[in-house]
This record gives sequence, C-alpha cells and structure tokens, in this order.
Amino acid sequence: MLTWERTQHHGTTSILEKLVGLPFQKIAHKVTTIDTQPSLPGANAIVIAVTGQVLIDEETRPQQFMQVFQLVEDNGFFIFNDIFNLNYA
Amino acid sequence: MLTWERTQHHGTTSILEKLVGLPFQKIAHKVTTIDTQPSLPGANAIVIAVTGQVLIDEETRPQQFMQVFQLVEDNGFFIFNDIFNLNYA
Repeated sequence: MLTWERTQHHGTTSILEKLVGLPFQKIAHKVTTIDTQPSLPGANAIVIAVTGQVLIDEETRPQQFMQVFQLVEDNGFFIFNDIFNLNYA
Repeated sequence: MLTWERTQHHGTTSILEKLVGLPFQKIAHKVTTIDTQPSLPGANAIVIAVTGQVLIDEETRPQQFMQVFQLVEDNGFFIFNDIFNLNYA
C-alpha cells in the first residue's frame, strides 16, 4: 500500500497509476537520516524511516520530506508499506 | 524497539531509561499528519506515520518531527516499533 500525501493507493495498478501521474518532471532527493528496525518476529520484514529534502523540477527551495517503508522478504525484498509526506513548517 | 535520534534501545528497561533520562522538563506536541496502514497479513498490526511540531521547555521556535510506530494487537495494542526524529532544515 502507498500513502502519498494523505491519499491511499492499494495494489500494483493503483500505485503505478499514481506514481506515473505525478505532476513533476524531475525530482532530486537528499537523504538526511535512515533508521531501520526489525519488524514482527518471524516476519522477515524491516521497518525503515527516512527523512531528507526534495527539490522538485526547477525549484530552488528544497522541501523537507519523510518516508516510511516496510520491506518484506519473499525471494528478495518488496515494499509492503510506503508512506510519503512533505513536512510543512 | 525505540530509535530516538539515531540511537537504538531494545526492550522495556532500556527504553524507559532513555525516556526518563531525556534532558527536558516539558514538551508540547502539535500533530500535523497521521497516516495509518495495515501491516503484514495475519499480524494484527498497524504502521503509523506522524509528522508535526514539538516545542521543548521554554523555547519559542517549534521544531519539525516525524515519528513512526508499529502497533501490535495482543490483548490490547502495544508499541512494537518506535522511531522518532527531529527534521532539521
């Protein structure tokens, strides 16, 4: 599942539609922190919290963001949870 | 597990020591966003991402924060994962 700035998208098709439809042409990420923790016992999964800055298209003022993932192992890792938020002052 | 500004604390004793030892007397939270997603199938758990501002002691300039939880149901919900970060510009 992807939560992108308040809106939830379930499943591959819906998530791809959202990502392909984002209204900017380019984006630069500068990651400030990455923290990981093991998820539930026996789950072969990890919880990851990322903070940093994004610079969208030709903007010169970076915006703070946070993103949370849960990755699950199943013949390689895949993204099970994904929450992205800009942090407004 | 608690990750507080880069440092990890495992288990109730270590987490309580960290929280009791925090070097401020009071803190005010203003929550801006709360996003939740169901965690792994069959786990009875939820992933929660929070953003907002904190005001520490007598400071007048709020700081941005993000916090991630995973809550697990086991005769009520308890906090399994907790990651707290201030977001510096």
